[in-house]
Amino acid sequence: MLTLFYAPNTCSLASHIALEEAGAAYEAKRLNFSESEQRKAEYLKINPKGRVPVLATGQGTITETPAILAYIAQTHPKAKLAPLDDPFQFAQIQAFNSYLCSTVHVAHAHKRRGARWADDAAVIEAMAKKVSQNMAECFALIENEYFEGPWMMGADYSIADPYLFTIAGWLEGDGVDPAQFPKVLGHRTRMAARPAVQRVLSREAA
Amino acid sequence: MLTLFYAPNTCSLASHIALEEAGAAYEAKRLNFSESEQRKAEYLKINPKGRVPVLATGQGTITETPAILAYIAQTHPKAKLAPLDDPFQFAQIQAFNSYLCSTVHVAHAHKRRGARWADDAAVIEAMAKKVSQNMAECFALIENEYFEGPWMMGADYSIADPYLFTIAGWLEGDGVDPAQFPKVLGHRTRMAARPAVQRVLSREAA
Repeated sequence: MLTLFYAPNTCSLASHIALEEAGAAYEAKRLNFSESEQRKAEYLKINPKGRVPVLATGQGTITETPAILAYIAQTHPKAKLAPLDDPFQFAQIQAFNSYLCSTVHVAHAHKRRGARWADDAAVIEAMAKKVSQNMAECFALIENEYFEGPWMMGADYSIADPYLFTIAGWLEGDGVDPAQFPKVLGHRTRMAARPAVQRVLSREAA
Repeated sequence: MLTLFYAPNTCSLASHIALEEAGAAYEAKRLNFSESEQRKAEYLKINPKGRVPVLATGQGTITETPAILAYIAQTHPKAKLAPLDDPFQFAQIQAFNSYLCSTVHVAHAHKRRGARWADDAAVIEAMAKKVSQNMAECFALIENEYFEGPWMMGADYSIADPYLFTIAGWLEGDGVDPAQFPKVLGHRTRMAARPAVQRVLSREAA
């Protein structure tokens, strides 16, 4: 039995969807971010970084979205969530997921998590002003250079899809009109129609 | 034949060392960052992100350090650079490498690459002031929670080691005294004694 520690409206949605798509035996434990549950001693024992997602397994815990997604794909091969026998194709998924975590998620985080990189309130506010431009540039690159269609990596649905769906869902909140990115928007629509995605969205909204 | 596109004093050092440790058949092509070669049209055709590293393979190019490192490990299994048959242990390496790219490298980038997240010169300067604190916090976490020893993940050298070595090499430049982190410092010394590391450092310094 796997346990996913998640919080609504965070990147843990990607791992949550992947577990559901994999047909994994798991339970989802919600953290209450409005009470800063992720910073409490009990949770810091599970994840010293004080973040979500965490996937607790029989062997120990795994942190970081790209690592959790690859683990779900590798331990649920029947779900075919990644090309496990082709290191090059697997690397393409990993490269995309790395880009999302190190560049796109980071661009987004400068809107509400600016205190990570500066202490002065005016500086934090100034960082937030560039978020919509940065997010638009990231999604222009995804739209024009990387999106294959109908799924992120092409014909086959993979662990890149729930991660893209998760971060693409932040565009409006970051002041970016997703209509500029018709491929990404079409992907969001296709994702929202998947039963596994609908189950997870209902659970996270409940 | 693989081709690594790299630049000295960047995170591409990790992939460069991993290729050398793997005994890979590769050539290393240096980009001249002082002439912004990574922003020129010819290179943007290879990597539209305008960054290093890129690993060009017979099947196409791979970007992003965690993806390149896992690819090198998977395609050179005799070098035993990752526990390829244990998804949980593989995930631990991936989680560490994800942390380095999405949190530690990002913390460092606020020193000299602040223009990615703000336009105002005073704001960029203000961000740079928090870099040493953030880098020290990241390395305290690595030292106290994650470093196993003698190598990053424990008894076996892996693709986590050249990546840790690369980013730990930035501490002094970021105003952090590495003597606070004796395990990380010991790791740096052990890494610097490896013939593969010495060959790569000589090539990059030439």
